[in-house]
Amino acid sequence: MEGKIIFFNRPFDNTLINTFKAYGGCVDQRVQGASVCGKYGAKAVIVRSMTNGLDDYPHTGTMSYGDLPLEKHIPTAAISSRAASILSTDLKKNPSLKFYFKQQCETLPDAPSFNVVGEIRGSDTPENIMVVGGHLDSWDLGDGAHDDGTGIVQSLEVAYLFKKNNIKLKNTLRVVFFMNEENGTRGAKKYAEMSKMNNENHIGGIESDAGGHTPRGFSIDANETNTALVQSWKKLLAPYGLHDLDKGGSGADISPLKGEGVTLVGYRPDSQRYFDYHHTSTDTFDKVNKRELELGSASMTSLIYLMDKYLYSNTPVKP
Amino acid sequence: MEGKIIFFNRPFDNTLINTFKAYGGCVDQRVQGASVCGKYGAKAVIVRSMTNGLDDYPHTGTMSYGDLPLEKHIPTAAISSRAASILSTDLKKNPSLKFYFKQQCETLPDAPSFNVVGEIRGSDTPENIMVVGGHLDSWDLGDGAHDDGTGIVQSLEVAYLFKKNNIKLKNTLRVVFFMNEENGTRGAKKYAEMSKMNNENHIGGIESDAGGHTPRGFSIDANETNTALVQSWKKLLAPYGLHDLDKGGSGADISPLKGEGVTLVGYRPDSQRYFDYHHTSTDTFDKVNKRELELGSASMTSLIYLMDKYLYSNTPVKP
Repeated sequence: MEGKIIFFNRPFDNTLINTFKAYGGCVDQRVQGASVCGKYGAKAVIVRSMTNGLDDYPHTGTMSYGDLPLEKHIPTAAISSRAASILSTDLKKNPSLKFYFKQQCETLPDAPSFNVVGEIRGSDTPENIMVVGGHLDSWDLGDGAHDDGTGIVQSLEVAYLFKKNNIKLKNTLRVVFFMNEENGTRGAKKYAEMSKMNNENHIGGIESDAGGHTPRGFSIDANETNTALVQSWKKLLAPYGLHDLDKGGSGADISPLKGEGVTLVGYRPDSQRYFDYHHTSTDTFDKVNKRELELGSASMTSLIYLMDKYLYSNTPVKP
Repeated sequence: MEGKIIFFNRPFDNTLINTFKAYGGCVDQRVQGASVCGKYGAKAVIVRSMTNGLDDYPHTGTMSYGDLPLEKHIPTAAISSRAASILSTDLKKNPSLKFYFKQQCETLPDAPSFNVVGEIRGSDTPENIMVVGGHLDSWDLGDGAHDDGTGIVQSLEVAYLFKKNNIKLKNTLRVVFFMNEENGTRGAKKYAEMSKMNNENHIGGIESDAGGHTPRGFSIDANETNTALVQSWKKLLAPYGLHDLDKGGSGADISPLKGEGVTLVGYRPDSQRYFDYHHTSTDTFDKVNKRELELGSASMTSLIYLMDKYLYSNTPVKP
């Protein structure tokens, strides 16, 4: 590959019903393509955008040079899935095809930014904290409506719905708008660091960072006992279309809070349209359906209600 | 109400997760409003459009004068949900508000139209027919993309997928594009009448007439044994997001085929966005998501496959 532009064109496996699994099976091309090819002397890397179908939008996202020395860093870019299909066809016809690309993007110096935090103190054991959150930042080419404007709105709505319906919580509900999820999760790391410094006791949390589509369930990251407890609520949740209660990850922003006795949950809406918009210029407000968004807020609120009622930390902090 | 314009403004119950249930709880206003008010001497009827949220589009649909004598027929129209909310506010401020409306719509004379029928003959018991269909017609103000263009495409795709994957069916698969669902189901009635006349034996069928959104399951209209049989396939269907397998209606076009031993099924996709587009000028092709549509076709094909393999008519026709 020395001196060449390397083209990664592995498409999503569309037989996977959960599109996040298809994404997981492809995103190595974007994240590690440049570091692997740079190591072997390639000139640059072009990647097929991470999406299910054919569209005309480049889908951006994180990439990393890992521990590659600076002189081996090479440029990389995602092209639209349709452009990738055309390029693939053309390359097969003419294997010595020339490809020209020029980039204008740059990484600006760091600037101060902040998490936004608010809470409703618990009436009984306020030292026990249930966190609910999403992330404030987004990729620069779109508005970040589904990634993760909807998660921010839903997290705020959880607090709003408890207030509106005058439901008192025993434990403290803390809403966190995390900063910098897309570029190193520094907001999440700082939050976890300060939480530890202040001897806070998080008993659980929900993250909404999978889009604002129709609710389908939650992914549970907890010990056996608490996983079984959350799964035992299925009969309460299923009538609202919340059938998926599998073990799995929660989310990039709350996972630094992981620990024995902490029940972390990822909100899981329908995933079919998520990668139509993910990290593109089309991830805009008009793609969010109000009712689907609100059903998600209600689903998250119901789960926090159940957590507050039935979930006890295995490592309670005595007042 | 004599001499007055009557305004029906009962909105959808948005606490119902299945939006078709909310529709069912409101549509009497549109269907029967004019006949009831005409009987008591009203001048006209205005109806809040059948939709979940607030939008600026009138949603049309069927209405009936029942057996009301011609001289009592009064005009009726649906106004957008936002216009209805404004009208309601204005009426409360000024109960003697005047409302002017003029209609230009008309009912044209009947013209010939046709069902479109194709089939793949069964290899073993071709006299047993499994029907799959949607309807060709739509309300005039939009394209009818979700109602019911998607049902037509999905029905055709069922046949295509068996051909493409070279799967032989024991029973005959018949694809029917029904005509005139929206205005009297005369295509459905004619199909059932001709089927009876020809001594055909329908063992089952699937109708897709609930939009082209993400698959969630099927509604089963069959006897106890066959309902239990279809529900026993849940373990095969649930991994594909098909959790809903309740007893219920199948659809307007296949229900005339109902009979002992006939297993009729309605395809049930996610219903959250359906009434955003239903019977409006916005029900256009761009609202259909290719992947959601195709997952629906695949779900229907899987169910036909299972029906072909495991479903036996309780009243088989001997060759």
